[in-house]
Amino acid sequence: MVDKKGLKVATIGGGSSYTPEIIEGFIKRHDELPVKELYLVDIEEGKWKLDIVGNLAKRMVEEAGIDMEIHLTLDRREAIKDADFVTTQFRVGLLDARIRDEKIPLQYDCIGQETTGAGGMAKALRTIPVILDIAKDMEELAPDAWLINFTNPSGIITETVSKYTDINVLGLCNVPIVMEKMTAEILDADADKLRMDFVGLNHLVWGRAAYLNGENKISEVLDELATGNFKDVENVPDYEWGKEFLQSLGMLPCPYHRYYYLTDLMLQEEIEAAKNEGTRGEVVKGLEASLFELYKNEDLKEKPEELEERGGQYYSDAACDLISAIYNDKGTLHYVNVKNNGAVNCLPEDSVIERTSLIAKNGATPLNVDPLPPQVKGLLQVVNEYETLTIEAGVHGDYGAAVQALTIHPLVESSVVKDLLDDIIEKNINYLPQFNK
Amino acid sequence: MVDKKGLKVATIGGGSSYTPEIIEGFIKRHDELPVKELYLVDIEEGKWKLDIVGNLAKRMVEEAGIDMEIHLTLDRREAIKDADFVTTQFRVGLLDARIRDEKIPLQYDCIGQETTGAGGMAKALRTIPVILDIAKDMEELAPDAWLINFTNPSGIITETVSKYTDINVLGLCNVPIVMEKMTAEILDADADKLRMDFVGLNHLVWGRAAYLNGENKISEVLDELATGNFKDVENVPDYEWGKEFLQSLGMLPCPYHRYYYLTDLMLQEEIEAAKNEGTRGEVVKGLEASLFELYKNEDLKEKPEELEERGGQYYSDAACDLISAIYNDKGTLHYVNVKNNGAVNCLPEDSVIERTSLIAKNGATPLNVDPLPPQVKGLLQVVNEYETLTIEAGVHGDYGAAVQALTIHPLVESSVVKDLLDDIIEKNINYLPQFNK
Amino acid sequence: MVDKKGLKVATIGGGSSYTPEIIEGFIKRHDELPVKELYLVDIEEGKWKLDIVGNLAKRMVEEAGIDMEIHLTLDRREAIKDADFVTTQFRVGLLDARIRDEKIPLQYDCIGQETTGAGGMAKALRTIPVILDIAKDMEELAPDAWLINFTNPSGIITETVSKYTDINVLGLCNVPIVMEKMTAEILDADADKLRMDFVGLNHLVWGRAAYLNGENKISEVLDELATGNFKDVENVPDYEWGKEFLQSLGMLPCPYHRYYYLTDLMLQEEIEAAKNEGTRGEVVKGLEASLFELYKNEDLKEKPEELEERGGQYYSDAACDLISAIYNDKGTLHYVNVKNNGAVNCLPEDSVIERTSLIAKNGATPLNVDPLPPQVKGLLQVVNEYETLTIEAGVHGDYGAAVQALTIHPLVESSVVKDLLDDIIEKNINYLPQFNK
Amino acid sequence: MVDKKGLKVATIGGGSSYTPEIIEGFIKRHDELPVKELYLVDIEEGKWKLDIVGNLAKRMVEEAGIDMEIHLTLDRREAIKDADFVTTQFRVGLLDARIRDEKIPLQYDCIGQETTGAGGMAKALRTIPVILDIAKDMEELAPDAWLINFTNPSGIITETVSKYTDINVLGLCNVPIVMEKMTAEILDADADKLRMDFVGLNHLVWGRAAYLNGENKISEVLDELATGNFKDVENVPDYEWGKEFLQSLGMLPCPYHRYYYLTDLMLQEEIEAAKNEGTRGEVVKGLEASLFELYKNEDLKEKPEELEERGGQYYSDAACDLISAIYNDKGTLHYVNVKNNGAVNCLPEDSVIERTSLIAKNGATPLNVDPLPPQVKGLLQVVNEYETLTIEAGVHGDYGAAVQALTIHPLVESSVVKDLLDDIIEKNINYLPQFNK
Ligand SMILES: [Mn+2]
Ligand SMILES: [Mn+2]
Ligand SMILES: [Mn+2]
Ligand SMILES: [Mn+2]
Repeated sequence: MVDKKGLKVATIGGGSSYTPEIIEGFIKRHDELPVKELYLVDIEEGKWKLDIVGNLAKRMVEEAGIDMEIHLTLDRREAIKDADFVTTQFRVGLLDARIRDEKIPLQYDCIGQETTGAGGMAKALRTIPVILDIAKDMEELAPDAWLINFTNPSGIITETVSKYTDINVLGLCNVPIVMEKMTAEILDADADKLRMDFVGLNHLVWGRAAYLNGENKISEVLDELATGNFKDVENVPDYEWGKEFLQSLGMLPCPYHRYYYLTDLMLQEEIEAAKNEGTRGEVVKGLEASLFELYKNEDLKEKPEELEERGGQYYSDAACDLISAIYNDKGTLHYVNVKNNGAVNCLPEDSVIERTSLIAKNGATPLNVDPLPPQVKGLLQVVNEYETLTIEAGVHGDYGAAVQALTIHPLVESSVVKDLLDDIIEKNINYLPQFNK
Repeated sequence: MVDKKGLKVATIGGGSSYTPEIIEGFIKRHDELPVKELYLVDIEEGKWKLDIVGNLAKRMVEEAGIDMEIHLTLDRREAIKDADFVTTQFRVGLLDARIRDEKIPLQYDCIGQETTGAGGMAKALRTIPVILDIAKDMEELAPDAWLINFTNPSGIITETVSKYTDINVLGLCNVPIVMEKMTAEILDADADKLRMDFVGLNHLVWGRAAYLNGENKISEVLDELATGNFKDVENVPDYEWGKEFLQSLGMLPCPYHRYYYLTDLMLQEEIEAAKNEGTRGEVVKGLEASLFELYKNEDLKEKPEELEERGGQYYSDAACDLISAIYNDKGTLHYVNVKNNGAVNCLPEDSVIERTSLIAKNGATPLNVDPLPPQVKGLLQVVNEYETLTIEAGVHGDYGAAVQALTIHPLVESSVVKDLLDDIIEKNINYLPQFNK
Repeated sequence: MVDKKGLKVATIGGGSSYTPEIIEGFIKRHDELPVKELYLVDIEEGKWKLDIVGNLAKRMVEEAGIDMEIHLTLDRREAIKDADFVTTQFRVGLLDARIRDEKIPLQYDCIGQETTGAGGMAKALRTIPVILDIAKDMEELAPDAWLINFTNPSGIITETVSKYTDINVLGLCNVPIVMEKMTAEILDADADKLRMDFVGLNHLVWGRAAYLNGENKISEVLDELATGNFKDVENVPDYEWGKEFLQSLGMLPCPYHRYYYLTDLMLQEEIEAAKNEGTRGEVVKGLEASLFELYKNEDLKEKPEELEERGGQYYSDAACDLISAIYNDKGTLHYVNVKNNGAVNCLPEDSVIERTSLIAKNGATPLNVDPLPPQVKGLLQVVNEYETLTIEAGVHGDYGAAVQALTIHPLVESSVVKDLLDDIIEKNINYLPQFNK
Repeated sequence: MVDKKGLKVATIGGGSSYTPEIIEGFIKRHDELPVKELYLVDIEEGKWKLDIVGNLAKRMVEEAGIDMEIHLTLDRREAIKDADFVTTQFRVGLLDARIRDEKIPLQYDCIGQETTGAGGMAKALRTIPVILDIAKDMEELAPDAWLINFTNPSGIITETVSKYTDINVLGLCNVPIVMEKMTAEILDADADKLRMDFVGLNHLVWGRAAYLNGENKISEVLDELATGNFKDVENVPDYEWGKEFLQSLGMLPCPYHRYYYLTDLMLQEEIEAAKNEGTRGEVVKGLEASLFELYKNEDLKEKPEELEERGGQYYSDAACDLISAIYNDKGTLHYVNVKNNGAVNCLPEDSVIERTSLIAKNGATPLNVDPLPPQVKGLLQVVNEYETLTIEAGVHGDYGAAVQALTIHPLVESSVVKDLLDDIIEKNINYLPQFNK
């Protein structure tokens, strides 16, 4: 990291409705994390959003009275050049692609979700060529910078960069923090007093322990969770986990585990939703439109409360805290997607895991993971191999790898794999250069 | 092995309709495998079958003019005492239990099959207490004898004995041999000229290579298989595997892989069959009745051809060849269920795998397995952990382990696990002492 | 841990000359670590030392004006009962045994050292029966207490407790801290600003990284170390490490690595020393006599400066900081001996490693270790297997395991193993109940 | 393998005094292994030997009356082109280099031996550039041929080819066969009736089991071996292994284990020998001279008996049997050096091990190895890492890797490593292009 007067950060997908979150995050931490230049980058199709949200960002910074320059640009290379941190929050194909990720699998009676199952694979296939381009730019223009990836499926995207480039990369997700906040709520405790042991893959992460004043309260948390009185993330429907199930699982499942542990219920709910209020993507599309209307208001000089309905709570906390821990060499614990390197013995060394890790200027060191119980190990392993195959399919345009990935994925009905995959490729072909040759 | 004039073999479940197969096997090999005493053991409920098939056995031996005594007994301990080999082909709860294993899961829209999925677990839970009793008898009465297990789910039962007793045990299944014969047919070659590399778990085994005169023909075999012109075992319905699927899989799937790779098609076919001709168990029940009618015929002095429709082809070849290879210290290759011990690196050392192994007097040494590709590894790992959990449930009556086992099993809809499991336990409670306390 | 008004600590081997160190440590930290009762335990032969040092301890506490009761006792069980922490700093056979550990191997032209090689094994064999007795007392009288072991060979003793008892145990050594201080000195930096990555076994630990403000300075440290201008621990002679050697090693060796990397030089130096000033044990015996003379002085109310010559610098810091981190659930990094559990992939899961670990009320979680380079891996693995064999010999009195342990140990000439071992057993037979049967 | 009328074999180092062995082997097996063209290749300095031994070879073939053409050539590429098998038995630097390998280490009080320790590393460093050249020729001119390597250190050379080229390679050594013959002699049994379980590295291989009629006689063999009445290879001096040592080792050590288990005795014996009859290399030089005198005799038309004193018994049996097993797709067991691929779990997958393996046209499949006991594991691991480092040094001219390799090698005194290594490099510099830049 070049030691300059201040930090340069490039945010790819800067026109996102989430951007005020991260702006707020940088403003709040400006003392310890002096971001001098923030480049918000987007593509031509997103220029109108970039303008709106970028101007809000400028007003927020001005209101805060701090020394941070906001640059709006469509020139990614200009933004990346000499950056200290590059954050990614772009969505290839915009919300329409997400809606397709949700709707196509439903036609085959499979879970339609943009980060996991068939929809998650579609998103991965679209995103992989772009993230590799970004990493290539970084290798040339900012080889020592950190890539902090938020783009979903965050684990797969991070693993792709880790396997195929030389860039320093960490993946982030707000799910562990959301789980931690919920656990604190259940225990009626301050989240800061809680130390959680997370292990798994992105969107397939378990809370193995919840230490409150050094005592592991996980069994108590699971019992309370079984009452159904607590909810976690906004954009995943609620279901009660049975007490027997949770206690024999022995760990806190993440919200996305619902898709695995309650597959048919979730599928029925998705089918219902698609018929009525629309898929989550369709709902978000409406929310986004309203948000951008709000953002246009020249009098708005702070993150509007309405953004919270959008999902992605604690997003800015996760990202800014992580960046600050690296920049300030803090040696604090964060929940990140990081190369396994043997931390989880039953997964390959080059897989990327989601894990409580020590963060410092030299990056992330995962805490070692004691051998996992079979119920967690089995599911973790099969989904990890799905991810491995998806990355091969995404990087090399390997159709067979994609077939096999969907075949072993627990959320895809094996009988429909070929038809479903062909449908996904056809509908996304403009975003799939690796298959378009 | 005590060196006596001849061998003593005890066959638990001797009243099975399969018994003429194994009798024929021992007769054919009498020169190299001099079985002097064969104890056919059954329980009170099976006495009528034992009498019928036992008398046929006696006639077969007499006709062959060899020196082998057939003993029919309900006293298992008498049969086991000082035996050299104990073979198990019993079915706890008889065919009615099998029919339940097929029908209960169907009510929850899950595959109903007696060796895999929810039905396989039910069979495992019923069988584990009995096999442990048998092994306990062996530890006392024939501690150096070999237990050759055919009772399904053969891998799980073998692993239970391997983990919880000191008995020498190998598990057997005719599936690899059936696959080998089919491969020979596809290649228009003599099966003896073929050397196959099998790896996996029982009923989840892949043919990784098919060496004909030293050349690996597996890709050619997969292409031919994709034409749909070949069929394998009788008791699994036929489907065409797609060419893309097979070539990207890169290995020959076993017949039971249909349940995993074509889940919904198989489920629909099972539902149809249950409505019309009945489940496989119901069909077999009819076949068995006819067989026993045949067996009663005092003029019948050899294995009747009709037995072949029953399934279980090559069963006696597999068993007798294995026993002879041990007895004669042959050092030949066989396909057996054996403790992994690191042969498959991505599975625990104490799991039992199905693998091409060198068989000699000292038992089975699996050929080492090169690292497996992700599509095979992922499915193998999750099913292996299901098996681990099932054994814990079966041995300790651990309800939570059973919940988790079904939850991660690819053939069980996760939303129905608790109801399905409670139904299985209730309907099988007389055979589940470990849960009946 | 029972929540009482204050903590109860039992120190086994309380008559040690080191005791004023730990007393000072508890006094300094009394605010954050309110030790209410400190039991100093010793055996009959050590009573005179216990009285002298115990009375000094009482004067130190009185002088400090804190509320801590010092109890002197020969009744170990009274001391352990309901203790929160048990620390062990005893030496079975006292300094005379140490001197034997140094002198016997020298007669066979082997390194004579009380913690490694043949001498280390002798000490392990004497200590293992005693530590198992202590652990048994703890299982009965203080099952939730933490055993903080300082008794050498600290890694082997900790591993014995970890493998054969249910007690919470961590091993400690001042070597990593000494290395850290030396590194800080080399870098002309504040040790608090340094974050070191230690990995290995006790007395065979490497500093893999030295992060100063987040930058890894290890290569710079190795170059400086090669100048020979820096020394580390008092009780290990000094030698210059060659620059090529250190840079190709790529890690900071610990002082005891001299025995491995400069075996013959160290052996010659030991032989010289034995002839002249005496072995280290003999020198220490003299130092101890003087120390106890000093301790007798009723006017002495603090740790005398002369204790520093004794070795064991930072001993109290390591122990008290660790205990405080557990008690206060700090979540800070410490260098401890802890069950591997997969942190170092190339060692067995049940081995005890020395590793930078996160310490909290629930114990130690090692940071995961990236795959090690061959030069470190090879030496680490062979010494680890020596330790495994030594523990088997120590626990079960397995003579063959002892033979094999010495045979593979890099510091023992293989041709002399049997004679050397017989000599060790004969001379130590009163302390080796496991071989005395 | 191109299917021609007959086989083409190229023997690199064809001027070796061993060549009559392999000629005899091919003659004896001509029916099953129809070698049509045998190219004996050597370099300019060896031309006079090639001529002598080559003419003997021609006379042997003529005498046998078989259809095999012997070609003598200095053109390696002509010999390799379209070959089916390439065998290597060359010695870079001839016997003078061997004598240096024996004598240089002795000057530093270290074992001097041409296949292990410092001498073995010297030989590896000289050989690696040449074997890589040969493999490069094969990749171009005979990409499907098998390289059967006899050149020592056979394991390291085989591993180099396995790691750095695409050539099919197996390493061979006569040590396991010698051990098997000795075991048969001890048991007063026919070697053909024996099935041995060998595992380890080349010249560091253990006999884990010796099955005679299916019974493991290893304990009996060890007891007999301890009597000192049996000897194994000619070129390794004899010592009695102690009974306690052998029984606690639990496996049959190989002759070269003497260097590890009786280091000082062997060193003293080497020093004595060097003073008196000369090192083994010097003795062999004399033997070779006599052999070539013999070979010149135009009346000699068969392998002379005197060759047996040269060492290398069963060399031709090992090589020709292996080649025939591949050519004829036999599926028989042989003892070869082969890529580990997980067969030995405690070694890296890409290491080459020496192991009982199934040999067929597709190559070698090692039998899986049950977890090894610590005494074997520890030594195996450290020597394996020495090999890994040596290969890096040999391929890349990495001086630091060579320093570290010698440092961890059990047969090298660590204090002398740098001086010894510099001496080796200086004296061998003409054969070390990788260090000569
Ligand atoms: Mn996420
Ligand atoms: Mn079967
Ligand atoms: Mn220490
Ligand atoms: Mn050799």
